[in-house]
This record gives sequence, C-alpha cells and structure tokens, in this order.
Amino acid sequence: MTQRKPSPAPSASLDEATYLDRQDKASQWFKALRDQIRSAFEAIEDDYAVAHPNAGHNAGRFEETAWQRDGGGGGVMSVMKGQVFEKVGVNISTVTGTFDDTFRGQIPGTAENPTFWASGISLVAHMRNPYVPAVHMNTRYINTGGVKGKRWFGGGADLTPIIWNDQDVADFHTSMKTCCDAYQPNYYPDFSAWCDDYFTLKHRNEKRGAGGIFYDYLDQGDFDSEFAFTRDVGLAFADIYPALVRRRMEDTYTAEDREFQLVRRGRYVEFNLLYDRGTVFGLNTGGNVEAILMSLPPEVRWP
Amino acid sequence: MTQRKPSPAPSASLDEATYLDRQDKASQWFKALRDQIRSAFEAIEDDYAVAHPNAGHNAGRFEETAWQRDGGGGGVMSVMKGQVFEKVGVNISTVTGTFDDTFRGQIPGTAENPTFWASGISLVAHMRNPYVPAVHMNTRYINTGGVKGKRWFGGGADLTPIIWNDQDVADFHTSMKTCCDAYQPNYYPDFSAWCDDYFTLKHRNEKRGAGGIFYDYLDQGDFDSEFAFTRDVGLAFADIYPALVRRRMEDTYTAEDREFQLVRRGRYVEFNLLYDRGTVFGLNTGGNVEAILMSLPPEVRWP
Repeated sequence: MTQRKPSPAPSASLDEATYLDRQDKASQWFKALRDQIRSAFEAIEDDYAVAHPNAGHNAGRFEETAWQRDGGGGGVMSVMKGQVFEKVGVNISTVTGTFDDTFRGQIPGTAENPTFWASGISLVAHMRNPYVPAVHMNTRYINTGGVKGKRWFGGGADLTPIIWNDQDVADFHTSMKTCCDAYQPNYYPDFSAWCDDYFTLKHRNEKRGAGGIFYDYLDQGDFDSEFAFTRDVGLAFADIYPALVRRRMEDTYTAEDREFQLVRRGRYVEFNLLYDRGTVFGLNTGGNVEAILMSLPPEVRWP
Repeated sequence: MTQRKPSPAPSASLDEATYLDRQDKASQWFKALRDQIRSAFEAIEDDYAVAHPNAGHNAGRFEETAWQRDGGGGGVMSVMKGQVFEKVGVNISTVTGTFDDTFRGQIPGTAENPTFWASGISLVAHMRNPYVPAVHMNTRYINTGGVKGKRWFGGGADLTPIIWNDQDVADFHTSMKTCCDAYQPNYYPDFSAWCDDYFTLKHRNEKRGAGGIFYDYLDQGDFDSEFAFTRDVGLAFADIYPALVRRRMEDTYTAEDREFQLVRRGRYVEFNLLYDRGTVFGLNTGGNVEAILMSLPPEVRWP
C-alpha cells in the first residue's frame, strides 16, 4: 500500500498565491467534470427516450439545488430521476471551516491549526434496470492547517453490479487500471486493494460490489502529477460508466430481478450509514443532510 | 433523570443460586411475553382475514428461526409477514460471553471480570396501513462480571406514527405512564424524557416518532420490583399496541399516504444504522446479523 495513512509532516512548503491557485484549479475541475458527466448521462436519457417513444415518459434531466454550509462555503447538488437513471445524484462542494475538539488532531495537519478547506465531487447512481450496475465516484482535494499545513488528493470509483456480469466488471477495472498505470505501477494494485478493503460490510463479511479504486492522502510532493491523476480518474469514470449503462440498459429483466436489486440496495444503505467515512463525518460536522444522504437508493427492501 | 449512567459499584451481593434463579426467571419471562404478543398479533391477522374474505390472502403467521451465537447462547427470531403486519419481528435471546478489550471497562461491571450474560426480547413492527403506527419494544436483563458484578434491567416501548393521530399517541403514553406510576413517581417523567432524547435523529434534528419510555441500568437494589416493572412494561405494550392496530387497520389510505409512509421508514433505517446502541453493539460484537437487522423495514424510499 502506497500510503494508507497520511504522514504527520506538513506538505511541501509553498507561497500563498500558489496555495490559493491550486485550490481554484481543483474546485474548477470538479465543476467541469460534473458538467461533463451530467451531459453524458442526460444524453443517455435522450437516446433511451427516442428508442422508446411510446413509453409516455420524458427523458430525465438533472435538477440543481444550491446549498450553503453554516461554517463556510457550500455546494450544488444535482439530482436526476429518469428512465434509465432511477436516481443519480452528483454533488460538488467547496467548504471551509474549523474542526472542533472532537476532530482536531485526529485529522492530519490540524494539531496546530484546526482550519480546513475541502473541495470535491461525489456521485452515486442507482439504475432502474438491475442489469445496469450501480456506481459511486468521488474525488476531492483537501487542505488542512492553512498554507503551512497538509494538502492531499483522494477519491476513487467503484462498481456495484446487481446481477453480476464478468465482462462489465473486467472493463471497469481495466479502465481504472489504465488510468493508474499511466502514473505509478503500484497505484492500481494498491488502490484496488484499498477499495476492496474499504467497501466491505464487516458485519456480513461481504463486499459491497466489484471494487474499483480508492485512494486517499495522496501527497507525494508533485501537485501537478497528483492533480492530473485525480482528473484522469474522473475522466476514466466519465468514459467507462456511460458505456456500461448503454451496453445493459435494454436488457430485459423479470420481477424477480427487480426484487433482487431492491434487496441488494439494502446493502448499499447499510454500508453508507454504518461505515462510510464521508457520511459519518459529514453528519457529525453539520454537513448538508440532503447532499450527504443523496446517495441513498430511491427504493429499497429488507424482506 | 433517575439514573442515566450506571453506578460503577457492584450490585447488591447475592448467592450463586439466587443469581442463577433470577436469570432463569427473566429469560422465561421474555419467552412468555413473546408467546403472548405473537398470539395477539396473529389474532389480529385472523380477524382481518375474516373481514376481508375475498382479498385472496391468508392471515399472517409467525415463522421461527433459531440461531446460535458463536460466543455462547443464542435465540429465536420470529417474523410474520401478514396482511396487517407488513413485517413484524420478535427476537428473544439469552447470550453469554466475554467482552474483548474494546468493550472491557466501558461497560459497567466488566473491569475486573469481562464476562456477561444477557437476556431479552426485542420487537419492531412495520404495518401496511400508514394510519397504523409502527412500534418498537425491547426489555432486557443484563448481568456483567459474574456473581460479584453488575445486574440491571433496561428497555422501553416507543410509538412511531406515520400519519399522526393525537389520540393514538395520547393513549400509548397513558398506557406507559400508568405502568410507570404504579412503581415510582419519577419513572414516567424520567423515562419518557430519556426516550425522547434517545430516539432523536441528530443529523436532522428530528424525533423518530412520538416517544414512549426508555430506561436502562435499572438497579436500585430491589430485584422483585424492578423485574415486576419490566414485566409490566411488556404487558402494557401487549395491551395497548394491539388495540391501536385494531383501531386503525381498516382506515382507508391513498397512494400518497403510502409513499409518505415509505419515506418516513427511511428515518427508521437512518436511526437504527447511525445511532441505535443495540444495532451498533450487536454488529460490532459478532451478533446474529439477521436478528439484529430484522427491524429494518420491508420497503423503504429515499426519493
């Protein structure tokens, strides 16, 4: 594993202008990626509507809700409830604040200066057709402790097939591996293992899905490379996932397939509320509840 | 508040025979209460089936699943999926074990001797008709640290109306208050306040339902009275809840009412996975996953 825990040392020193410039570049990127993904998903909705002109439903469209954070900053939540995408949420946010005593010192770079700045994109898609896998993608740039503190990238993308398809899983992993291999040879083995480990329902001794990659505390002193890698993770996702959706969205499925999907979605809920660091952290630090819980599935069963 | 946290002192000393006799009496009671409640609920299913002979559905019946705990002991889970009770689970268990280092010392009576014995009944009902409130009831007798350790009762019952009805809520509280007032005048004010406090979704600043009573660490040196109170909580529940079900089960409801119910059930899931001590404790100590998550609703929406 490259770096499971952050080094306690400050990140490489840099001047205030560069510090702010990197924050700008990162937050602008997350917004640009959001726009690109929304367009790709809406195009799928359009094509599906054209292919099913008599279904009596309109193509889905994202609806935006802006939100402010009491502590500073805010974000924009985009949710689409369509014909292919039963519910997909994409949230971008750039927030600032000060950790209270509960978190101060637990989070790298905050012992001397408990302020933070964080920007990122987070996406979860739950699909109508059980043959189309659900998916999660998140990338983020986090600064703590001000200009003399810590700065790192994190994120990843992981696939949750409902009715398993080996080819889809293999293609998703190939996409992530190709993206990783362009940077460092250990990225894919390390980050895919980290993903498997992270997305485990310990109480059921079960993986949430088919994995993908997960990385955090990426801070090896080369901002340009780490930022480029983070952009490429987003682009790889924006390339492979729409392709998988288009491949499976016309597959026929039975009522039993749908029931199975609704039960599997329960595992998603269990993971997010019991284990997910972002969910638990967000709910405990006064984050936007609707944005945090946007990822919960539209319909679920625990039979 | 009578006693929010347990006193660190051992419970009143008693001989081994009395220690074991109390455990026997408690675990037998939980089973007897379980049987009484199952009969009352199945009688409702019978009466509903008679009143709707053409509905094409049979009256619901409880199905039992016995389970063993790796660490010692086990239980019986009873689940009914009926016409009135969409999903109701009643679990009884009597388990023994040894706390590992994570819990040792955090739980009263375990610093010197980390063993425990625990017996109880736990019930959650999710109803088809949104005008019938959902409900939760749990009572338990817990011993830690062996014969020289701590022993206490805990439990309570709380109502979660979906479409609020003041009379139902008032009658449920009156039932719990009457039960409490027969013991100590502070029981109802303290235990109902504790219930309101406990069943709060902090991230939404929302109560889960209409409250009821919640008590824990009840150990005032009078086993007979504390056990009688715990029995009476169960009996009060077994009296009032079936009455409320019968009062509302024929109410007509709309598709919007049902949708509202499915959304409100999401709050139940959020509470149980984010906050419920029993759920989190059980999942972290190798408890029976199906028995612990039996309380999750059969169908839920996060639209």
